[in-house]
Amino acid sequence: MDLSYYIELIGVGFFAISGALAAAEKKGHHNDIFSAFFTGFITAIGGGTLRDITLGNYPVAWVRDQNVLWAIFFGFVLTILFARYWVRFRREIFIFDSIGIGIYTVIGTKISLLAGVNPFASVILGMVSAIFGGVIRDTLINEVPLIFRKEIYATACLAGATLYVALQYMNIDENWNTGFSVFLVVFIRIVAVRYNLSLPKFRLPE
Amino acid sequence: MDLSYYIELIGVGFFAISGALAAAEKKGHHNDIFSAFFTGFITAIGGGTLRDITLGNYPVAWVRDQNVLWAIFFGFVLTILFARYWVRFRREIFIFDSIGIGIYTVIGTKISLLAGVNPFASVILGMVSAIFGGVIRDTLINEVPLIFRKEIYATACLAGATLYVALQYMNIDENWNTGFSVFLVVFIRIVAVRYNLSLPKFRLPE
Amino acid sequence: MDLSYYIELIGVGFFAISGALAAAEKKGHHNDIFSAFFTGFITAIGGGTLRDITLGNYPVAWVRDQNVLWAIFFGFVLTILFARYWVRFRREIFIFDSIGIGIYTVIGTKISLLAGVNPFASVILGMVSAIFGGVIRDTLINEVPLIFRKEIYATACLAGATLYVALQYMNIDENWNTGFSVFLVVFIRIVAVRYNLSLPKFRLPE
Repeated sequence: MDLSYYIELIGVGFFAISGALAAAEKKGHHNDIFSAFFTGFITAIGGGTLRDITLGNYPVAWVRDQNVLWAIFFGFVLTILFARYWVRFRREIFIFDSIGIGIYTVIGTKISLLAGVNPFASVILGMVSAIFGGVIRDTLINEVPLIFRKEIYATACLAGATLYVALQYMNIDENWNTGFSVFLVVFIRIVAVRYNLSLPKFRLPE
Repeated sequence: MDLSYYIELIGVGFFAISGALAAAEKKGHHNDIFSAFFTGFITAIGGGTLRDITLGNYPVAWVRDQNVLWAIFFGFVLTILFARYWVRFRREIFIFDSIGIGIYTVIGTKISLLAGVNPFASVILGMVSAIFGGVIRDTLINEVPLIFRKEIYATACLAGATLYVALQYMNIDENWNTGFSVFLVVFIRIVAVRYNLSLPKFRLPE
Repeated sequence: MDLSYYIELIGVGFFAISGALAAAEKKGHHNDIFSAFFTGFITAIGGGTLRDITLGNYPVAWVRDQNVLWAIFFGFVLTILFARYWVRFRREIFIFDSIGIGIYTVIGTKISLLAGVNPFASVILGMVSAIFGGVIRDTLINEVPLIFRKEIYATACLAGATLYVALQYMNIDENWNTGFSVFLVVFIRIVAVRYNLSLPKFRLPE
C-alpha cells in the first residue's frame, strides 16, 4: 500500500516534468516559467481529475492530498535545474514515461472497479486517467494530441487495463495483477517504439 | 419510456459514427483505428457527460449503462465496415445528425428540469448536451469548432430546448412535447442548410 | 455580503464582454452573434464551473442562480450595442478585466478554503477560477491561451490568492483581506503591463 503510494507520487512528478518540457519546447509561445509549471501541473493531474469528476469521486486526489502538489512542484524544480540533461536523456526518459502511464492506467482502473463501475467503463476510465493529462497538455499548447500520433500509446493502456480487469475476475493476487498489468503497458510501448509498430490506419477514401 | 431509451442509443451510435468519420477525414494526422474510435467515443459522450458533471448527476450515463458503450462500439464497427458508403451518403446522414442533436437537446433539457434547475440554465444545458461532444471533437482534431461555422447549429438546439421548456410550463403531454421539440430542431437545421441561412454576423470594426 | 454578490455579477458581465469581443475579433471564423454569446458565456462561467466540479461543490453558481445568466446576457447585449466603443476603450477596459480576475481569484480561494481544502490547492483553485474561463475561450477560438502570452497574468492571481490565504491565517478581517488581495492582483497586473514586466523565460537548449 505504502509503496504504491510513493510510486504514484513518482509518476505524478514524471508527468509534471514531461508537461513542463513540452511547454518549454513549444515554438512561438512566450515559454515563461509559469507556463512550464502550469502545463506540468495540468499534465500531472488532468487525467486523474477527469476520472474522479466523471465518477463523482470526491475529493479529487490533488485537492485531498497536498503531497501530490509537492510532487508536481519537485518535478518542476528538477525540470528547471536539469533542463539540458532531460533533453539529452529523452530516450531513457521514455521508459519512465511508459512506467508512468502503466501505473496511472492500473490505478485508474482499480479506482473505477472499486467504485462499482462496469468493467468496460473501468477500462476506459483507466486509459483516460493515463492519457488525458497529456491530451489536455497538447490541446493547450496547440499540438496534435498524442493520441493522433504515430506510435501505439493509448492502446497500450487499453490492453493493460483489460488485463487488470481480467485477472481481477480470475482472483489473481492484487500485487501480481498490478505488476503484470503495468508490465504489459510498458512492454507494448517499448516493443511498439523499438519496432516502429502502429495500428492499422483508417482514412476515408477521397 | 422504452422507446425513447432505444432512440437515445441510436443517437449515441450516430454521434460515434460522426466522430469517427471526422477523425478519419482529418488531414495531417496519423488517423489510426484507435483515434477514430476515441474521437467517436468523445463525440458521443462528451456533451452528456459535461451536463451530468455540471449537474452533479451521478453516475453519468455511460458509466452506469454499459449499453451506451456498446452503441458506440457498434457505431465504430459500422464506420469501419461501411466507410466508403458513409462518405457517399453524407447528405442523407445529415438528417440523422439533426435528429441526433434534437434528441440530445430534449433529453438534456428534461434531465436538467427534473434536477430542479431553473429554465434558462436547463435550456443551456440541453444545448450543451447536444453540441459539446462535437465541440470537444473539433478541439481535439484542431478544427474550428462547429459553433463557429456557417450554418445555424447550436441556435437550433436553443430553440428546441426553449420550446420544450415552454410546452412543459403549459402542461402539454410529455410525448407530444418531445416530438414537437425534436422536430423544431430538425426543421430549423434542414431549412437553414437548404436555404443557406445563417445568423447575423458580429465582427468588430477594424 | 450583498455588495460582494453584486460585484461578482459585474465581474461575470465583464468576462462575458471580453469573451464576446474575443470571438468577434477572431479572423477566419464565421463570427455570428451566437458564437459571440457562447464564447462570452464560456469565458464567464468556465473557471468557476471547473472549480466547483473539481470541489464537488453543487449546484454550480450559474445553475443555481439565474442572475449569473442575466449578467452574461446583459454583458452580451452591451457588447453588441457598443461594439465600436469597446474597441476604442480597450486600454481602459483592461483595468476592469484586472479587477474581474482579482475578484474571481479571491472568491475562488475563499470558496475552496470554506470547503476544507488545503491552502496550496486553494491557491491553485483560486487562480483556476480566474483564468480558466479565458483558457477555454482561447482554446475554442484556436488562439494561444493567455497563460502562454507575454504579460504576467496567472501569476498575479497566484500572488493574490496566496496573500488571501496568508491574511486568513493571521485572522485579518475578511473585508480588508478581500480588498488587499484583489488590490494586489490589480496592482501586479497594472505594473506588469505598464513596465512591460514578464516572468523569466524557460526554453530548452536546442
